Amino acid sequence: MQDLNIIGGQAKQASRKMVVADTTLKDLALEMMAQALIENTQPILDANQIDVDNARQKGMKESLIDRLALNEKRISDAAEGLMHIRSLHDPVGEVITMWKRPNGLLIGQQRVPLGVIGIIYESRPNVTVDAAGLCIKTGNAVILRGGSEAVNSNRAIVEVIANAAQKAGLPEGCIQLIEDTGRETAVQMMKLNRYIDVLIPRGGAGLIQTVVQNSTIPVIETGVGNCHVYVDCSAEPEMAERIVVNAKTSRPGVCNAAETLLVDEAIAKDFLPRILKALEEKGVEVRGCSRTQAIITGIKPATNEDYYTEYLDLIIAVKVVNGIDEAIEHINNYGTMHSEAIVTSDYANAMRFQNEVDAAAVYVNASTRFTDGFEFGFGAEIGISTQKLHARGPMGLKELTTMKYIIHGNGQVR
Amino acid sequence: MQDLNIIGGQAKQASRKMVVADTTLKDLALEMMAQALIENTQPILDANQIDVDNARQKGMKESLIDRLALNEKRISDAAEGLMHIRSLHDPVGEVITMWKRPNGLLIGQQRVPLGVIGIIYESRPNVTVDAAGLCIKTGNAVILRGGSEAVNSNRAIVEVIANAAQKAGLPEGCIQLIEDTGRETAVQMMKLNRYIDVLIPRGGAGLIQTVVQNSTIPVIETGVGNCHVYVDCSAEPEMAERIVVNAKTSRPGVCNAAETLLVDEAIAKDFLPRILKALEEKGVEVRGCSRTQAIITGIKPATNEDYYTEYLDLIIAVKVVNGIDEAIEHINNYGTMHSEAIVTSDYANAMRFQNEVDAAAVYVNASTRFTDGFEFGFGAEIGISTQKLHARGPMGLKELTTMKYIIHGNGQVR
Repeated sequence: MQDLNIIGGQAKQASRKMVVADTTLKDLALEMMAQALIENTQPILDANQIDVDNARQKGMKESLIDRLALNEKRISDAAEGLMHIRSLHDPVGEVITMWKRPNGLLIGQQRVPLGVIGIIYESRPNVTVDAAGLCIKTGNAVILRGGSEAVNSNRAIVEVIANAAQKAGLPEGCIQLIEDTGRETAVQMMKLNRYIDVLIPRGGAGLIQTVVQNSTIPVIETGVGNCHVYVDCSAEPEMAERIVVNAKTSRPGVCNAAETLLVDEAIAKDFLPRILKALEEKGVEVRGCSRTQAIITGIKPATNEDYYTEYLDLIIAVKVVNGIDEAIEHINNYGTMHSEAIVTSDYANAMRFQNEVDAAAVYVNASTRFTDGFEFGFGAEIGISTQKLHARGPMGLKELTTMKYIIHGNGQVR
Repeated sequence: MQDLNIIGGQAKQASRKMVVADTTLKDLALEMMAQALIENTQPILDANQIDVDNARQKGMKESLIDRLALNEKRISDAAEGLMHIRSLHDPVGEVITMWKRPNGLLIGQQRVPLGVIGIIYESRPNVTVDAAGLCIKTGNAVILRGGSEAVNSNRAIVEVIANAAQKAGLPEGCIQLIEDTGRETAVQMMKLNRYIDVLIPRGGAGLIQTVVQNSTIPVIETGVGNCHVYVDCSAEPEMAERIVVNAKTSRPGVCNAAETLLVDEAIAKDFLPRILKALEEKGVEVRGCSRTQAIITGIKPATNEDYYTEYLDLIIAVKVVNGIDEAIEHINNYGTMHSEAIVTSDYANAMRFQNEVDAAAVYVNASTRFTDGFEFGFGAEIGISTQKLHARGPMGLKELTTMKYIIHGNGQVR
């Protein structure tokens, strides 16, 4: 069994050296990691085949096996992903602000690596490459703990990329994998405050809650999105339809997809038939409140539970509300503070919605589906934070750094 | 017994209204809170007298009773503190950055209140006023949980300031006190994720560790400072002496005071006699490594334990190191990432120290004692963060806010 204290200690040592690694060196490492992935495609695929066979034997759902399985294309995509990370601007070292105090002290705030980042994720081997790449680019050491079903794939991948990083000149231990995927080891990892600076869970709601409940290390919560689109009475119907259909159906399995549609009662009679028809054409199952059911007969009822549910599927809850006040209240009560949208032509309602809805991303007249590091222009994404500390919304490279005050004096005392 | 779910729910409700409270309203509330404190000096002093009598009966140390005891001057100081917070710039609403994407989406990052802040602290009634004032100014609702010995004082103070805030027009429940000071209730508070957005412990290492170990709410760790001054071989001896003496003795009981002195071996023979004399003149007890003892006879030995200790007292550990490498390594191994200083005339060593020391504030040629919200020019301080997420170093008003993405579209879908 691996000793987590040894892994942690090595990561901490490595992180001290990563701090002084220039961008040139980190970029060289990313390039060599990408190359090594390509060169070692076959051994990685062999290891992955063991995982896939085991998973199938255990009766894993095909949709999950699809996430687990690698092929030549997926490995070359992962390598390309590393080359893309290499091309991004390195935020480390940037001095955000610097000012002089009356006593002559020059105080600056500089962006520095977080140190050691722990990533806990499910059985998706591509996350192994992606997370490692993002951490390396930002000068962090990383400890990866993937799902048990992917352990052979992850071992093969980490061996390849960690060796490449070291060959490039990065310190030993900057990329490590916890191979023991037992629950006990995971909980032990969540208490390694002495070595791990931040823990980032990537995966479903269950995984994230386990980490939040058990970790004594600061956690960046990612993911769960119970998102809403509110169609105000002043909305252009065509725009409202386009946004609702896109938010719900363009990729229903992701966290920025809409789960509940709120419609102002003033337009419910006109708008509901139109939007429900459009949604049903896309194969969406509609569950409606009593007022929705009164307007459109034959709709399944939406329970209170529905309003709390992140379906991640072609299902939508529909609720008629008494205008913007009830819409805001509903969202703040049932939402997960991820992405929320209003469709409106009314200036005051647009501003109120943006001010009063408590979420990471609040949209006027656009689809919730844009909450994404790439769509925001960050060039990368480690996840979407739904908490309020440190990072909120899509997290790019900057969010994998912290700040340090650097102070230049000439003998000042207090 | 108070039901924490009711307190939490009320705070959450209040926080929704606080979000839309303009600075003018919040400033009026702070003014009325200050006035109410002055007008109610006598009832507050009466309540405080009960706490002081109880504490004395239980044999509380006089130094702690001094922190607990109020008098007319201390109440007027607290009121003045609120008026000072009132005078500060309100960071809420500021749009930090806003950019346009190729698809026309305008994406901005706006500073918004955190929501509900929980503060857990010891028996210092002045923290009650100060913490409430800072939270109100930044548009947050606050749940206060002070030490058991101050419960009567805190009840009296919160009644006065909460009423004043409400009279000014702020929502009911924006300032609440958990009166049950039992440990069980505290632990229950630390699990109120549903209502509390951030938990800030203010107090000693024991309190902070309890919160870190038990809280499932994101925590901002504050406080513990095992700070070092490293005197490089190129240091001007006079400047080095001034900084070391100031860092150790100007206020030994605070977190930014120095606890260990590191001296480059190249100057140890010359510098140690000078600095030890200066420290002893200030009544400082010196504990030295073997090399220190070899140079100055009669010095108490410093154990490994000493290097980990935040004395908060007129005691200093002294260690001779083989230059800057060992100094940086020692600090990164034994320090608490609070405040670290080098005294040097060497440019390369100054830069290396700032780059490689992992701490919230890294000083060249200045005393560690400057790590403070007021000294940094923030005008206020809720604590000094020694963790890496969200806030690092002195936390002022900005650190009591979070960000929200506001996105303006005209019908964009993905």
